[in-house]
Amino acid sequence: MSVPAGTQQDFLSVDVNYMMADFLGGTQGISALDLQRAQALIDKAGQRMQQKRSEMVWRELPYSQTAVVEQILAYAAQAKGQFENFVVLGIGGSGLGPTAVHQALNHPYYNELSAAQRAGFPRFYVVDNIDPERFAGLLDVINPATTLFNVITKSGSTSETMAQFLIIREMLRQRLGTDYAAHIVATTDQTKGNLIAIACEEGYKTFFVPDGVGGRFSELCPVGLLPAAMTGVDIKQLLAGAAAMDEWLSNCRTWDSNPAYLRAVLQYLAIGKGKNISVMMPYSEALKYFADWYAQLWAESLGKRVDLAGNEVFAGQTPVKALGVTDQHSQVQLFTEGPFDKVVNFLAVGEFKQEVAIPSAFGTIPGVAFLGGHTLNELMQAERRATEFALLKAGRLNNTIMLPEVNAYTLGQLIYLLEVETAMAGELLGIDAFDQPGVEAGKNATYGLMGRPGYEQNKQAVDQEAPKLTKYILQR
Amino acid sequence: MSVPAGTQQDFLSVDVNYMMADFLGGTQGISALDLQRAQALIDKAGQRMQQKRSEMVWRELPYSQTAVVEQILAYAAQAKGQFENFVVLGIGGSGLGPTAVHQALNHPYYNELSAAQRAGFPRFYVVDNIDPERFAGLLDVINPATTLFNVITKSGSTSETMAQFLIIREMLRQRLGTDYAAHIVATTDQTKGNLIAIACEEGYKTFFVPDGVGGRFSELCPVGLLPAAMTGVDIKQLLAGAAAMDEWLSNCRTWDSNPAYLRAVLQYLAIGKGKNISVMMPYSEALKYFADWYAQLWAESLGKRVDLAGNEVFAGQTPVKALGVTDQHSQVQLFTEGPFDKVVNFLAVGEFKQEVAIPSAFGTIPGVAFLGGHTLNELMQAERRATEFALLKAGRLNNTIMLPEVNAYTLGQLIYLLEVETAMAGELLGIDAFDQPGVEAGKNATYGLMGRPGYEQNKQAVDQEAPKLTKYILQR
Repeated sequence: MSVPAGTQQDFLSVDVNYMMADFLGGTQGISALDLQRAQALIDKAGQRMQQKRSEMVWRELPYSQTAVVEQILAYAAQAKGQFENFVVLGIGGSGLGPTAVHQALNHPYYNELSAAQRAGFPRFYVVDNIDPERFAGLLDVINPATTLFNVITKSGSTSETMAQFLIIREMLRQRLGTDYAAHIVATTDQTKGNLIAIACEEGYKTFFVPDGVGGRFSELCPVGLLPAAMTGVDIKQLLAGAAAMDEWLSNCRTWDSNPAYLRAVLQYLAIGKGKNISVMMPYSEALKYFADWYAQLWAESLGKRVDLAGNEVFAGQTPVKALGVTDQHSQVQLFTEGPFDKVVNFLAVGEFKQEVAIPSAFGTIPGVAFLGGHTLNELMQAERRATEFALLKAGRLNNTIMLPEVNAYTLGQLIYLLEVETAMAGELLGIDAFDQPGVEAGKNATYGLMGRPGYEQNKQAVDQEAPKLTKYILQR
Repeated sequence: MSVPAGTQQDFLSVDVNYMMADFLGGTQGISALDLQRAQALIDKAGQRMQQKRSEMVWRELPYSQTAVVEQILAYAAQAKGQFENFVVLGIGGSGLGPTAVHQALNHPYYNELSAAQRAGFPRFYVVDNIDPERFAGLLDVINPATTLFNVITKSGSTSETMAQFLIIREMLRQRLGTDYAAHIVATTDQTKGNLIAIACEEGYKTFFVPDGVGGRFSELCPVGLLPAAMTGVDIKQLLAGAAAMDEWLSNCRTWDSNPAYLRAVLQYLAIGKGKNISVMMPYSEALKYFADWYAQLWAESLGKRVDLAGNEVFAGQTPVKALGVTDQHSQVQLFTEGPFDKVVNFLAVGEFKQEVAIPSAFGTIPGVAFLGGHTLNELMQAERRATEFALLKAGRLNNTIMLPEVNAYTLGQLIYLLEVETAMAGELLGIDAFDQPGVEAGKNATYGLMGRPGYEQNKQAVDQEAPKLTKYILQR
């Protein structure tokens, strides 16, 4: 796969002005001197990032998936004519990544378009929950006979996804007889786990999650690439954008040259100043669900009880999802006037794919008339600029990642930038950014409550250790 | 309107067990003694709530809208046959409330249902942003000639909504000629502001936001009732639920009898213990968008720079949106192992409207086989129970509001409960929960940047006060 030569116009930029003491003063802001002093930390963490690069398999995905991409494109091209609907069965990164890319790059009302408007690509659904109402509801709007289901779980032991799979498989068997296997494509580990065993036995088409790629770092492997290709997203450009970002990040080691390191160290210093909240606020509906993807990446990677030496540190910074301009009428009041506990990260878009003019009318009403002759695009940009300015004036840390436009190439950059930023933040915090030990207790309790053999004690623990007191339950 | 006699089965309950020191110990948990000591605070704040009740016009909406409800139902019945699409143009509470109620009570894939499946009710859209791509995209999927647009802004000076209105009005004029006015219904102040003036001049159907009802407390007036009625929601039951909750709350003054006071005082005490984050985590896709509605209510009401005496307090607690079980694979790792800075509020549902069985299969694979014979409903409940238990074991404050089922009556209760809780939390914090002064700076800067006469200085301030330094912008 050729990586196109990036022009400056094609690249996102990272603007941290309003994080800085130059603008915010020294109490809230971070000074250039702070950053210079932190360079030694950056150097050490950067060296560890280099040493661990071979373990961070996700960092090679922009290069390692070349052959897989061709297989995915061939499969997607053949499936396009066959299926009216494509349904992802997945949770965590397996749901968040495909949703974020779909929303970013496809039509905002994609599933409501006619087949012709969709250029023949199938409708697209992500079932990332086990809510019975939503699950049953899906079957009211899709015909299983013309639907392709993509079961995504690396281990094949994700209860939610396997439950979905069992239901869909049985339904397909009853409806389609022996042909049902052609309606299931599995994305899973190539050799280990339950799903690959089942897929081989039943003859499903399979794609593989490379060894060592965890869920929240899996968007640039078949977990994300197959769903994206199924709706016509240019997945080569997605990977090319990631590769171009990798080239930038790999060749720069300092806070004033490497945007992932700069963003990571600023968050690290901000955490030190008591900013335990990180708001992701795209000024773009297309990027709204990207905030959900980021929330998993940031929360699950950095939220850790112990550091690498085993000391209890209870690390982490809580991601908050917001959307410009909508949240100016919701959360921004708090961001501006509430506790000084946040960093606000804006995602800005230079050029939208549409321009919408606001007609002039009601010239005698000044509060309405001033809008006429402008465009929604101008209003959107003005409100973003006004909000960052208002936050600055209120002494609130904020920064902006500017995408010249939202396309597969810039989105690939953004995904890769935030992945490296997260890994770097993990290094600075001295924690393991790639595990998730905190969800084991809940998983085991679920197994117990669901009667899985071997987990009887976990059921007992829930039933006996924490029986609720009626005096703390108010009811009518 | 008759308020049906609520049976215990019809009422939500509030379970705060895992907020308590009995379970969490005294460092994290709140003791019964803490609550008893706080009763004096509750008494004082409750008295102020009583004194101000006549100012809190939203508290009377369950009773004051009786006549309006009949008008709305008559209008909706007549519009039902005429229009294929109903589009809300609104932002803040005008978008969040209608969206939350629609998602809670209608089919999860409502707009993709056939007209027959929707029983003839129109498709439903909420345009709560000015993103040009989404706005233009909407016009790809609706035919304006068969669409009714509901412009909602109390003041008629909300830039985003008025910009949307100008665009839609011009498009309708061009497409439909003089008939266009029948495609617009305005929800606004009865006497003041730009929109009522325009509506009268142009002959739009109008509904009114009662004096003194702010955006985030407006769901139970025509702002929310008209959109709900347009999709067949039983708005009488919505108000009846709110009235039933009011009856409960108005007759109970103590922490162990009044669930709104209990929840408010627990949050107040938790804030005092450094919990600056409040997670709203429904275990129900239907209630997913209710977390967005709550986020505005909690953030905008409590995030305040000054208290009622004018002292700088920078009050507030940051709402975080989560969804069970989905977020067990995203944010729950952080909630369990990260900083001790949160209260997690679960919304639980007793009975879902659907039951989905998980078929038995793959008996030789224990990690899959244990799921068979259960239902998604059981799995959902087990995971919720397991998560609250895991959070408890990790020393994390959590509580549950249990809805016996999600219907208009319980939803009305929930809306009213959280509104009173928010007002009570404002009283306990000593701030004004009903204004939003922090968004003025951004609004004025927007006016300046958009060239509104009289706001030239605001443009100058943005341009001159905070010019960005290129050294803090990293680009390729």
